[in-house]
Amino acid sequence: MHSIIQYQETIKTHFEELKLTKEPKNLYEPIQYIISLGGKKMRPVLTLMASEIFNGSLENAIHAAAAIEVFHNFSLIHDDIMDDAPLRRGHQTVHEKWNINTGILSGDAMLILAYQYFENYEPIIFQKLAKLFSKTALEVCEGQQYDVDFETRDDVTISEYLKMIEYKTAVLVGAAMKMGAIVAETTEENANLIYDFGLNLGIAFQLQDDYLDAFGDPETFGKQVGGDIIENKKTYLYLKALAQSDNEEKEQLLHLFSIQPNDNTDKIESVKTIFNNSGASKETQIAIKEYTLKAFETLNKMHISNEKKEILRTFGEKLMNRNV
Amino acid sequence: MHSIIQYQETIKTHFEELKLTKEPKNLYEPIQYIISLGGKKMRPVLTLMASEIFNGSLENAIHAAAAIEVFHNFSLIHDDIMDDAPLRRGHQTVHEKWNINTGILSGDAMLILAYQYFENYEPIIFQKLAKLFSKTALEVCEGQQYDVDFETRDDVTISEYLKMIEYKTAVLVGAAMKMGAIVAETTEENANLIYDFGLNLGIAFQLQDDYLDAFGDPETFGKQVGGDIIENKKTYLYLKALAQSDNEEKEQLLHLFSIQPNDNTDKIESVKTIFNNSGASKETQIAIKEYTLKAFETLNKMHISNEKKEILRTFGEKLMNRNV
Repeated sequence: MHSIIQYQETIKTHFEELKLTKEPKNLYEPIQYIISLGGKKMRPVLTLMASEIFNGSLENAIHAAAAIEVFHNFSLIHDDIMDDAPLRRGHQTVHEKWNINTGILSGDAMLILAYQYFENYEPIIFQKLAKLFSKTALEVCEGQQYDVDFETRDDVTISEYLKMIEYKTAVLVGAAMKMGAIVAETTEENANLIYDFGLNLGIAFQLQDDYLDAFGDPETFGKQVGGDIIENKKTYLYLKALAQSDNEEKEQLLHLFSIQPNDNTDKIESVKTIFNNSGASKETQIAIKEYTLKAFETLNKMHISNEKKEILRTFGEKLMNRNV
Repeated sequence: MHSIIQYQETIKTHFEELKLTKEPKNLYEPIQYIISLGGKKMRPVLTLMASEIFNGSLENAIHAAAAIEVFHNFSLIHDDIMDDAPLRRGHQTVHEKWNINTGILSGDAMLILAYQYFENYEPIIFQKLAKLFSKTALEVCEGQQYDVDFETRDDVTISEYLKMIEYKTAVLVGAAMKMGAIVAETTEENANLIYDFGLNLGIAFQLQDDYLDAFGDPETFGKQVGGDIIENKKTYLYLKALAQSDNEEKEQLLHLFSIQPNDNTDKIESVKTIFNNSGASKETQIAIKEYTLKAFETLNKMHISNEKKEILRTFGEKLMNRNV
């Protein structure tokens, strides 16, 4: 087995060799730009890792890994347009650096390019990958739509929220790993189990993201702590707090999530107090643990050596400790 | 062989039965909306027709036909955003009826749905269809990018223009027919020949569209006659006129294509005079005939009965006489 850093190097080298700088350059330069912006390339790393877990080679898995990474970046470009986001990975977003039309069209091309990478496999593997990919990509679109819909709804339930993060984020993590399993030609049982491993770890990771956004260490959490609170974002913490608060605290929380003060210090502190008093913080930590455990339980059923199981468990723990 | 009207009915019925009204409805309603707006559904008709030419059944070809139609409508939604177009087929465009974000996301979902329709075929056919589809879809994106680029360039050559319309429009016509050939499992030679038939007919049709935009009968031409001239669009007529005019007329044409008067009557007449005097009108008619003949020549090499060849030729003639 290779290390995470070696996987990342393999992916980086592969994209450098792909030569995405074709004509017309106004279509392909933005693609080259966002791919080379960096990021941890965690999703394609998972494809390579999963492939090696099931005795596949990196050379064979790299095309599926590239498809996952290009799809992920397609969704970032289009999401950034929808969110009117100026920055991505510390650099200008594509629609900021070029314009919205370029963002739309280069994004479209990337979705197609992702499918093209599967052409490196023979028909049966190709169809398995493309089917899983289409199902996953459509779920990601649905998850994004739910996320947009939730912004203007005040009756979002916990289970709806969980479905949204599952679709918007976690299914791609599961699919990235399952693709590694598919190209390594392991059993369908193993492939489905590693999908569930990735899916549940993905949900746990996203719930932890919600938690850290409020309670994380500003030194180590990559984003602005309190960002979700400033944006009145309906996270798991918020929905749990609403569901579990008494009437007075509920009123207060609803009020706090209706205002946009210039200085957010007081707002953030008040919201965090409600998150704690209502038990929402604790409930979120419990949910994170549950989904992490659910991921690890799939390892018991997997038909791989104990060493391989240990590698996946260690990776999961490092990921949840934000140490990857 | 069935008639065009029967093909259109088959496609209409198929989409009604597909039930595109899933959740989240803000994602799927716009898809249902644009698909049901009507239009002649010429591209999926070509898939069904090509399939029958090579002895395939409609039941088998309908999924590839649906993929072509859904892809075409995806490209219309995204193009309409880029062109800021308020109307499509006489109705509000998706981004006008909903908003730009909905247009982007529902369009993305349609591109994925198109690939999913290929899952109705076994792996080898599936891969052939998906490969052709990806290549074609990427060319359509490239064609759209060239079209956008040309708006701000004043050195577009005739051959660049021909490549643009080939990619933006004609390759999808060729691919629609080739997909019918693929699902009917004819020879690769036949499949490539019908691709060339569709491709050349598509180029001829688009050049004729340029011609009719200036010289068509306002009673029968679907769009506003003179629309391209009003929008200063660099069509085949314009590029030919520029290339073939003397300096004085060239100056005049460049001037006319730099102004946007309130009343366009004089501008349209002056431009049309230059189109005629420079020989551009005649050259365009010659080019239309050449591409039409090139399409018909592929029929000679096709391994099908003379009756089938006659059906394709008659269809081509009807299309070019705008009688379909």
